[in-house]
Amino acid sequence: MISPLATPDPRLDLVLERDVDVPLERVWKAWTTPEHLRHWFVPKPWTVTACEMDLRPGGVFSTTMRSPDGQEFPNVGCYLEVVENERLVFTDALLPGFRPAPKPFFTGALLLERRGSGTRYTAIAIHGDEPSRKNHEEMGFHDGWGTVLDQLVAFIKQS
Amino acid sequence: MISPLATPDPRLDLVLERDVDVPLERVWKAWTTPEHLRHWFVPKPWTVTACEMDLRPGGVFSTTMRSPDGQEFPNVGCYLEVVENERLVFTDALLPGFRPAPKPFFTGALLLERRGSGTRYTAIAIHGDEPSRKNHEEMGFHDGWGTVLDQLVAFIKQS
Repeated sequence: MISPLATPDPRLDLVLERDVDVPLERVWKAWTTPEHLRHWFVPKPWTVTACEMDLRPGGVFSTTMRSPDGQEFPNVGCYLEVVENERLVFTDALLPGFRPAPKPFFTGALLLERRGSGTRYTAIAIHGDEPSRKNHEEMGFHDGWGTVLDQLVAFIKQS
Repeated sequence: MISPLATPDPRLDLVLERDVDVPLERVWKAWTTPEHLRHWFVPKPWTVTACEMDLRPGGVFSTTMRSPDGQEFPNVGCYLEVVENERLVFTDALLPGFRPAPKPFFTGALLLERRGSGTRYTAIAIHGDEPSRKNHEEMGFHDGWGTVLDQLVAFIKQS
């Protein structure tokens, strides 16, 4: 029972799509294992100092990012859809247990498709309004999500 | 993969639990069939003038209520969890396709358990903060949800 994920709307949403030469299962694992995720999830020299995952709808997905000057930024949300090796959807609009969150920003979707021995990697940020999309863009969505994808591929190749 | 639904917190949440003498399958059907729902979902003389359901996570759940003086109030959200005859979870914090919604208010959960030939009916409203819970209470949660449960039981018995 796959969900009818919102079709990306250029006014509201941001999309990063790229083919990478690492196997789909390894990408899935890097996204769904806290010990893997902390190696690549934020652009260096930022770091991930904490990560919690309960891989089921309503289960916690939280990360804490630390800036180079030592400030910590916790993010907490939950998963909405978990289809192994294929689709991972999460949001910060709902806390774990589906409780409405104080500051909703976006729903994220990771879509994976096999391309030979590599993977077509699609990451989508779905926003509720245009200012949120713009804000995310100005925070450096394209560079940032592109950089972490480079980091993810490098992590997989070296581990 | 059942979700870890938030445990009701008396500060934030509202719960209606009652045993009713109608079969569980009929209660499920009344909640999941637009043509049934409009007969009981709002306290009369309010009416439901439109209802749309796509019974899967991320699928639309929308209703339009009309007040006795003819004003219409549309509500749109999506389902989060659909476990037939057992559990239905929906929210207005996300629009269909999991897009963050402009005015999140609550996540609703319907839990059904068989009790002999009847049903233990539990309806939970999960809020993000205390003012939302209080607001919902002052809108008449207990009377309102109790009244529509009476209407639901009456609808099932007469149809």
